Amino acid sequence: MPSLIKEVSALVRAASLQKQSVEDLRRRGVTIIAADLQGPEDDLTSALAGKDVLIASLPPQNTLDQIGLATAAVKAGIKRFVPNAWATVAPAEGVMILRDVKEQVFNHIKKIRLPFTIIDIGFWHEGVTPVVPSGKFGTASMVGKNFLIGDGSTPSAVTSMDDVGPFVARIIADPRTLNRYVFAYGEIKTQLDCLSLAKKLTGEELEVVPISLDKVSQLANAAETDEYTLWHKMFVQYFNTVWVRGDNCPRYAKELGYMDAKELYPDLPFKTLEESMLETLQGRRNFPEAIGDDQYWEVIAKLLTGGVL
Amino acid sequence: MPSLIKEVSALVRAASLQKQSVEDLRRRGVTIIAADLQGPEDDLTSALAGKDVLIASLPPQNTLDQIGLATAAVKAGIKRFVPNAWATVAPAEGVMILRDVKEQVFNHIKKIRLPFTIIDIGFWHEGVTPVVPSGKFGTASMVGKNFLIGDGSTPSAVTSMDDVGPFVARIIADPRTLNRYVFAYGEIKTQLDCLSLAKKLTGEELEVVPISLDKVSQLANAAETDEYTLWHKMFVQYFNTVWVRGDNCPRYAKELGYMDAKELYPDLPFKTLEESMLETLQGRRNFPEAIGDDQYWEVIAKLLTGGVL
Repeated sequence: MPSLIKEVSALVRAASLQKQSVEDLRRRGVTIIAADLQGPEDDLTSALAGKDVLIASLPPQNTLDQIGLATAAVKAGIKRFVPNAWATVAPAEGVMILRDVKEQVFNHIKKIRLPFTIIDIGFWHEGVTPVVPSGKFGTASMVGKNFLIGDGSTPSAVTSMDDVGPFVARIIADPRTLNRYVFAYGEIKTQLDCLSLAKKLTGEELEVVPISLDKVSQLANAAETDEYTLWHKMFVQYFNTVWVRGDNCPRYAKELGYMDAKELYPDLPFKTLEESMLETLQGRRNFPEAIGDDQYWEVIAKLLTGGVL
Repeated sequence: MPSLIKEVSALVRAASLQKQSVEDLRRRGVTIIAADLQGPEDDLTSALAGKDVLIASLPPQNTLDQIGLATAAVKAGIKRFVPNAWATVAPAEGVMILRDVKEQVFNHIKKIRLPFTIIDIGFWHEGVTPVVPSGKFGTASMVGKNFLIGDGSTPSAVTSMDDVGPFVARIIADPRTLNRYVFAYGEIKTQLDCLSLAKKLTGEELEVVPISLDKVSQLANAAETDEYTLWHKMFVQYFNTVWVRGDNCPRYAKELGYMDAKELYPDLPFKTLEESMLETLQGRRNFPEAIGDDQYWEVIAKLLTGGVL
């Protein structure tokens, strides 16, 4: 299928214009436009003029910057806004702080009648790739320890980040997905599936840290402390929604009103978790940056395995 | 189409069991069950045992009582919960206080995975039937004055309350509406349509109170005071969403994810506004209770026509 996307521009903070990553985009033909999401709305409107689709990809702490961006997008005549979602399927309120904040943006978009598509993509392969004793998976294994939550049998959608771009290109060219939620993912895997896959491909014995469902759910809802920060809690809430509640599945997505990209595009190719792991083992792939250092995961492990909050 | 509904029960507060309205239900074959929405969850679960569909119809101040009710409904195995909506189409947040509160209930339902159907029904005929000098429409005209908002050309869905029951019976028997929002309404009318219809049927000259769009939207967002209470504000917010923002229309409903009952059931009969007005003029119909007394509408008129808050 030929791409319908003719031109890609990227809004970048003035301070970042000279960064290597931005230079890489330029070299790939992306038009770079300086913009400040916290700056005057009129400047944002000018930056967006003439564009059809606007896609937000922001770090969590900038989620609410999309409120002004969306208002500017209406004035600029944007025909479809894809706000920051890019996560596991979860209910709108009361389970994940991060999802609660996104909901404010989604509600604002609907209130001002900005045409939208909200795309969630399941759990990254990096979130389910186990740690092996040899360290062969490197930062392609994002979670610092193999927390085995409950009996490890809860299914979850898992997706290669490499597939997200092609998924999105397809979704935003589809009139059926206008003003809808779309769940686009690769496969469905349990934690046990992921552990046995890693064991099969590496031949290594894996160390697991067994955690009860109750403990995860309790910690996910516990108040933050100096030790247990918002950043720890955000990840524990991912464990809770994905592995305890089992939210990150096509069935619940449908209950929440999502369209299923596998039904919309049965021909859409995707990378399997096994392919991702093999690429990493063969040195063809690396996750760019670790989420947390050892200390970060030690805190979570301590609290999950019985440390008192 | 034969009804699929075999048995109807009603939960009623113990204090109301002897009321005439409850006796009327009993005589119509409704099983009356004493229940306290603020009582123990286990009692509610028992009261709901064996039921398939649960429909909430509560006054605004009891909206949040549905949180416990929904939790009990999950335990009782309710297959479909129809929470309190029964209103005009509006965005989830930031336009109507009443809708904001309902959203908390909707979010809870989705979080606990209680199967649901949310039904909005547009503006009641009583909300758009003008006041005529002879007073012939009586309490079938709910709004105390003919506020003409802007140029009166904003379209809105209008519905006879008599149709809501049959609409709901059809919707809850339909598997397509499970876990969906449905917009079920009679016709689309502007304020000018309603005024000219009333003039045609009564032959009377109508007095209108012209109000600017800006004034309505300003008052809808103004802080409450001793004089301008929550109850005034709730109605002004209806004016704002319906006649200023134009939210209460099939197109916006679709943008918000609603299914359209006219598309689901093209054969579904409904009463026109003209039929409603004629029934009232012929003494065959009366709106049971006025929303506010003269003083209530005087306050709103005073503030809308330039009174300082």
